[in-house]
Amino acid sequence: MDFNPYLVESRTYFVSALQARLKELNAQGKEVISLIMGDPLEPTYPPVREAVQAALADYTVSQYPKTEGSLAYRQAVSDWAKRYYGAELDPETQIISCNGSKEAIFHLPLLFDWTTGKEMWIPSLSYPVYAESAGIQHIPLRLLPLNAENGFLPDLDAITPEDWKRCQVFWINSPHNPTTAIASREYLERLLKLAEQYNFLVCSDECYNELYYGDEPPASCLEIPSQHCLVFRSLSKRSHMTGYRMGALMSFNPEYIRLLSKMRAPLGVGTPDFIQAGGIAALADDEHPREYAERYRVKRDKLVSELEAKGFDVFGAQAGFYLWFSHPSLPTSSDLLEAFIDAGLLITPGTAFGDDGEGYARLCYCVTNEVCEKIILALRRLAV
Amino acid sequence: MDFNPYLVESRTYFVSALQARLKELNAQGKEVISLIMGDPLEPTYPPVREAVQAALADYTVSQYPKTEGSLAYRQAVSDWAKRYYGAELDPETQIISCNGSKEAIFHLPLLFDWTTGKEMWIPSLSYPVYAESAGIQHIPLRLLPLNAENGFLPDLDAITPEDWKRCQVFWINSPHNPTTAIASREYLERLLKLAEQYNFLVCSDECYNELYYGDEPPASCLEIPSQHCLVFRSLSKRSHMTGYRMGALMSFNPEYIRLLSKMRAPLGVGTPDFIQAGGIAALADDEHPREYAERYRVKRDKLVSELEAKGFDVFGAQAGFYLWFSHPSLPTSSDLLEAFIDAGLLITPGTAFGDDGEGYARLCYCVTNEVCEKIILALRRLAV
Repeated sequence: MDFNPYLVESRTYFVSALQARLKELNAQGKEVISLIMGDPLEPTYPPVREAVQAALADYTVSQYPKTEGSLAYRQAVSDWAKRYYGAELDPETQIISCNGSKEAIFHLPLLFDWTTGKEMWIPSLSYPVYAESAGIQHIPLRLLPLNAENGFLPDLDAITPEDWKRCQVFWINSPHNPTTAIASREYLERLLKLAEQYNFLVCSDECYNELYYGDEPPASCLEIPSQHCLVFRSLSKRSHMTGYRMGALMSFNPEYIRLLSKMRAPLGVGTPDFIQAGGIAALADDEHPREYAERYRVKRDKLVSELEAKGFDVFGAQAGFYLWFSHPSLPTSSDLLEAFIDAGLLITPGTAFGDDGEGYARLCYCVTNEVCEKIILALRRLAV
Repeated sequence: MDFNPYLVESRTYFVSALQARLKELNAQGKEVISLIMGDPLEPTYPPVREAVQAALADYTVSQYPKTEGSLAYRQAVSDWAKRYYGAELDPETQIISCNGSKEAIFHLPLLFDWTTGKEMWIPSLSYPVYAESAGIQHIPLRLLPLNAENGFLPDLDAITPEDWKRCQVFWINSPHNPTTAIASREYLERLLKLAEQYNFLVCSDECYNELYYGDEPPASCLEIPSQHCLVFRSLSKRSHMTGYRMGALMSFNPEYIRLLSKMRAPLGVGTPDFIQAGGIAALADDEHPREYAERYRVKRDKLVSELEAKGFDVFGAQAGFYLWFSHPSLPTSSDLLEAFIDAGLLITPGTAFGDDGEGYARLCYCVTNEVCEKIILALRRLAV
């Protein structure tokens, strides 16, 4: 048998590798707090669980969920998009549900023909699923360099017209994981104009958009009625629903939704109807993500103070629940990893997100207050 | 943009096409009972829902489900396989969970390199997901002819050694959808020997295996400890759990499970933990699938009598909940479809499963007693 060479050769998914390291440390009797998963430890928005339980109460006969999601769920997405961004999206033709954005991101490339020389473009530092999807499916990938100089956003001016012609899919993730960089409205408008000019699709992964610490929400592609954009949203972060798997894809261009619906029909990733009931409850309220953000902001302030007191350079941190940082005395990601492990904290080395992450590390602070206090004590122990 | 040519050119998934036809008939005021979905209308095994509700009762903090499923779920699968088939499977290295078998079937080809000339082989009449997966992913596909003469099972003797060398994945589905054909233990043993000889993987889709009407369960690849086999099982049919999305992949060869685990990590198709609790409850009991089968048998007997009284030839029908039939006076699948619509029943034309289905049709009888009585009345009206 000829196995997929990417699977045979590729390194282990970083989460699995770090979890193995954690297991090893625990076996040695060392207590280490894991801060590697963007998986909130604070409660799910309570009406979600209540709505799922209520939906199950009379769910005696189960039936296959629809590929595109129930109309009620898509209507809830439409209502939320209208309320939050003023976007007018028809629930039947411009919205489709997904099992959280992870699977939707992985499957997106199936929509395209990759034999014609076109490429999928992603930031050189990224949520690993874009590159894993490209690797497993053998899709030509181009990494757009991110660094402190370009504010961890792809430099659109550095790309030549010849290069733009090779772009088929452009992934933009704002607020960005792992760096927390935020693309401005002007940046997104410029990108969407380029998409129209060179006929490519902007895939806008906005799963952290509702957890922000400034006065205004980060810009969203839902505010710009482009025909060359597909927006990926997830309820995992905004409503602490990682364990439920619920999200949505939206586009002002119904053709993408029509093709996605056809592509996703045999995929078998319809979300159970009773979980969609939870999604409807989550989307009916815009206040709880603001409350969650306020709680994250308090933690962020404390942790950033501690890190800066130790001489760390912390980037951004105006949205999401990650800290992205470097330290002049700990020049490699491996140095950062080991120094934090010595202090009792497991963080993700920046290189897990791409080679351009060398010298950086990411810390997830989607933790309880109690754990946050432990992190503070550990940071005070940290030797630099 | 260059869209996936398969999506642009291919016909609509047959279920969608038939549902559109149904909508049209309803709009014309014609009452038609849909018998096209293998989606049981009898209740889910009640302890499933109770277990999901109990798991939700204290599920205040949600966390990402594991790719491979919880150890408790995999242990339940292992215990069931041991009890039911005498199979010894290590839950940690020989079992992985899936969101029902549909997604697992769609994704299976990602495990392999398809650029070396190897092919995926499927029966010429099949559950459409095998061919859709191959089409969307551009995988070389070979259809093995099924017909009444070979009992709707691929004729292993008709394949030359040169041909066997091109096989990478061989899908066998027994009891078979749509024809209900059952492969004997000898057939499966022969196939697994060929897999060893020519180094290919047998993917055994056994989702109807526990709904049988004879004295003995249909043979399963779980009874034959081959190193060249991956078994796909689903709780959708045996426990009426289609709406929950829960299944498992098993292999006596841990290497497939290791690679599947690596391949599936970025896929985002982990099943929510509270649904896995329902899966554990379903697998703890072997009696309810027998009770469900007995109820299906009663319906089958009534419907087969009616069909035979009208001159239909009904094939097999010793397992599952499909009837596969033809009629000398209705020579095409289209003739069958229209005659049934005239009588008030929507069935699936055999051609929906492949060109070799011409002249046949499939009727799903996973219905309530009340609907079964309506079908009987409709069949008596049917003009042939």
